[in-house]
Amino acid sequence: LVSRLPRVGTTIFTTMSALATEHGAINLGQGFPDFDCDPALIECVERAMRANLNQYPPMAGLPALREAVAGKIARMHGRRYDPAGEITITAGGTQAILTAILAVVHPGDEVVVIEPVYDSYLPNIALAGGVAVRVPLRRADVGGRPSAPEAGAAADDAPAIDAPAAPAGATGFAIDWDALAAAITPRTRLVLINSPHNPTGASLDDADLDRLAALVRGTDILLLGDEVYEHMVFDGREHQSLARHDELAARSFVVSSFGKTFHVTGWKVGYCAAPPALTAEFRKVHQFNVFTVNTPMQAGLADYLRDPAPWRDLAGFYQRKRDRFRAGLAGSGFRLLPCSGTYFQCAEYAGVTAAPSGLSELDFCRWLTTEVGVAAIPLSSFYDEPTENGIVRFCFAKRDDTLDEAIRRLAAL
Amino acid sequence: LVSRLPRVGTTIFTTMSALATEHGAINLGQGFPDFDCDPALIECVERAMRANLNQYPPMAGLPALREAVAGKIARMHGRRYDPAGEITITAGGTQAILTAILAVVHPGDEVVVIEPVYDSYLPNIALAGGVAVRVPLRRADVGGRPSAPEAGAAADDAPAIDAPAAPAGATGFAIDWDALAAAITPRTRLVLINSPHNPTGASLDDADLDRLAALVRGTDILLLGDEVYEHMVFDGREHQSLARHDELAARSFVVSSFGKTFHVTGWKVGYCAAPPALTAEFRKVHQFNVFTVNTPMQAGLADYLRDPAPWRDLAGFYQRKRDRFRAGLAGSGFRLLPCSGTYFQCAEYAGVTAAPSGLSELDFCRWLTTEVGVAAIPLSSFYDEPTENGIVRFCFAKRDDTLDEAIRRLAAL
Ligand SMILES: CSCCC(=O)C(=O)O
Ligand SMILES: CSCCC(=O)C(=O)O
Repeated sequence: LVSRLPRVGTTIFTTMSALATEHGAINLGQGFPDFDCDPALIECVERAMRANLNQYPPMAGLPALREAVAGKIARMHGRRYDPAGEITITAGGTQAILTAILAVVHPGDEVVVIEPVYDSYLPNIALAGGVAVRVPLRRADVGGRPSAPEAGAAADDAPAIDAPAAPAGATGFAIDWDALAAAITPRTRLVLINSPHNPTGASLDDADLDRLAALVRGTDILLLGDEVYEHMVFDGREHQSLARHDELAARSFVVSSFGKTFHVTGWKVGYCAAPPALTAEFRKVHQFNVFTVNTPMQAGLADYLRDPAPWRDLAGFYQRKRDRFRAGLAGSGFRLLPCSGTYFQCAEYAGVTAAPSGLSELDFCRWLTTEVGVAAIPLSSFYDEPTENGIVRFCFAKRDDTLDEAIRRLAAL
Repeated sequence: LVSRLPRVGTTIFTTMSALATEHGAINLGQGFPDFDCDPALIECVERAMRANLNQYPPMAGLPALREAVAGKIARMHGRRYDPAGEITITAGGTQAILTAILAVVHPGDEVVVIEPVYDSYLPNIALAGGVAVRVPLRRADVGGRPSAPEAGAAADDAPAIDAPAAPAGATGFAIDWDALAAAITPRTRLVLINSPHNPTGASLDDADLDRLAALVRGTDILLLGDEVYEHMVFDGREHQSLARHDELAARSFVVSSFGKTFHVTGWKVGYCAAPPALTAEFRKVHQFNVFTVNTPMQAGLADYLRDPAPWRDLAGFYQRKRDRFRAGLAGSGFRLLPCSGTYFQCAEYAGVTAAPSGLSELDFCRWLTTEVGVAAIPLSSFYDEPTENGIVRFCFAKRDDTLDEAIRRLAAL
C-alpha cells in the first residue's frame, strides 16, 4: 500500500489536545471556543428537526441560508453574490478548500501558498496532483496602530500594561510581495490567501488587495481566500475580503465558516462564494464529495440569521479577549507578536527563563503542557520543512476565567 | 478554465426532483423517505446540543458512536472492528467513498466499477486520476425465492396479485463474474462493490463473496463495499457484507450511512470500517477533507444506539412497502424486476401503452412526471455511455398513502 500522502501524520491539533487532556492542562492549542453558542441558535436547529427538515437539502445548500450569506457579504463588502449561482454551503471551511482545489487544479499545476501555512493546504494540493510553491511571510514591523501597541496591548478598560518586566513586543508577519511575485510562473493556477491569517494573526490591508490585483492582472491565475476568521479583525480595522475588490472577486473562491463565527466548530457548516463559472466547477466536485450539508443545521442557521444581529459584535468580543490575554502576559517572559485578527496570539518564548533553554517549538509546547499546564501549538507545525522561529500560538477563544487561569500559570514564567 | 470533470452536469436526482416540484408530481425519483425519523432520535440530538457538545469531535468520530458501529457489525456479521483504529465516522456515504478512493488510487491506477453505476463513482475516480473500468451487470433470472415471486410480488397480508392483466416479472440483474474476471489487470487497484445495489435492487449472496475472494486472491487489489442499503435486504435473506468474509474484509473499505438507516438522509452521517492500514490512509484524506463530522448528530446517534433496537426491523418495514408497491402495480403495464434489497424498485415500461411509444428512459421519466404525476429515475442515468434498457427506478421509501396515490396513478397506465 503506497500512501497518497506519505508525509501526513496525526495533526498537531489532535496531538496537543490529547496531551492537554492527559495532563489536565488548559487547552489553548487547538482553535475552538470553550464557551457555549447562543441558545437561540440551538432552538432554531431544534425547530428545524421537529419540522422534519431532516432529508437531503438542495445540493448547493438551503436557499434561505445562501440568501443570508449573500446579504451579509453585501452589507460587509458591498458585493452582491447571487445565491443561486454563486454561493454554495459546505461542510465547513476545510471541505470548501479541498473542493475548490480539486475543482480547478490539474495535475502539474502550481499552487502558491504562504508559509506558515494551515496544515490542510499542502495535502489538499497533493491530492489534486498539484505542485505547492511555498512563499514565506516576512517578519515586519506591522504594529503601531493606534489601539494595538506592539507589546502587551490592552483595551482602555484593561489593567495597565507597562509592568516593568514587560519585554517589548516582537515584530509581526507580513506578506513579502516581492517573494510572492517571484513565485508566480506560467504554471501557476491558484494562489491561496488566508486572511486573517492562522497562525500569525496577520491580516491583509486594503493596499494589499491592490498589490495582489497587480500581481495577477493579465494572467488566468485563480485565488482562494480562506477567510474563516473574517469576523475577528481588531482595532477598528475592516476585514479586507477578496470579495471587496472587483478584479480579485472575479477570480476568487471566498471561503468562510459558521463554526468559527457562531462558536459551533463541531457543526461543520461553511460556505464558498465565487463567480458563476468557478461555482459551477466547485459544485461538480462538491456534489460528489459530500453531496449536501446537514439540513437541520442549515435550516437553523438560516432561521437564526433572519435577524442580522448575530453577525455583529464578534470583533469586539474577541478583541476584549485578546487584550485581556495580552495584558495578562505583559509582565511575563513572552514577547507578544501583533495580532490584528483571528483568535490566535503568537508569542516568542526565548525570554521564558523557567523553561529548559534551547527547546524546539514542539518541545517547548510539550513542556508548557506537561509542566506548566497550558497547551499551545508550535509555529513549526505550520511549515513544510523544519523551521524554528521560537514562537508558539495560543488560542484565546476561551472563557475569561479560563484565560485568567492560563495567565496565572504563564505570567509567572 | 478547463474543467476537471468536463462531463459532469447537474445530477439526475436534482433534475428530477425539481421537475417533480414544478409539476406537483409525487416524487418517487430521488431516494429519500417522505416520513419522519424517530422523535427519540431528535431528542438525543437536542440533548447533545444543550449539553454543549457543539465543538470539534475527535477527527475519527466520537468514540461512543464508533463503538456502536463496531457492536452492530459484530452482531450482524461476526466481525469485531476496533473502534480506535478501524472505524471512521464520515459526512455520509458519498464522502466516505470519495475519501477512500482519494486515499488509495494513484494516478493511472485502474478502478473496476459495475454498471449501472452510482453517479458519484466515476467522477470520484477521475478526481483521483484513476482510470475507471466498467463491467456491466448481466440480465439474469435471479427470482424464484420463496417469498419474492418475480411478477408483482406480494407479502402474505397484501392483496392477491394474480390479476389477469399482470405481465410476468422481468429478469433481474446479477454480477457477471466472467466479465469481472476479464476486467482485472495488473493495474487494478480497487474494485467497487455496491450491494444491495442502487439502482437495480440486486444484492450479493454468500456464493458471490467466495467468487469475489477467488478473483482477488493473490493480488493486492483493494475493495470498497458501498453498503448503505445494508439494512434493507428482503425475503429472509441476510446482507452479505464484505465484512463477513475474512479474506475480503482484510482488503476492504466497508461504507454505510445512518441517513438511509434512520430516515435522516439530510443529516449526512455515515461510516467507513476498514483494517488498520487502510483506515490510516483513509483518515489522512478524511482529516484534510471534512476534518470532522457534525458533533451533535454524532452524539445524538451514539446516545440513541445505546439501545440496539433501532438497528432492527428495517428490513420488514421496507419489505412491506416493497410488497405494497409491487402488488399495486401488478395489474399495470409495468413489468417489475426482482428487488432483493434497497428501497428502489425497477420496472420495464414497454408495456405502458398510455405512453407515447419509443420514449427513451429519460423521456419516459419526464412524461411520467409531467403527465402522470409520478417522478422516477431513468436507469440510463447510471451508465457512462448511452444505454437503454427500457427500465425506470421508483423509490418506495414513502408513506403508505403516498405509495397508494402513486399506485393509483401508475396502475391505470
Ligand atoms: C480544524 S482543527 C483545529 C482548528 C484550527 O483551525 C486551528 O487550531 O488552527
Ligand atoms: C445522494 S442523491 C439521491 C439519493 C440516492 O442515492 C439515489 O436516489 O440514488
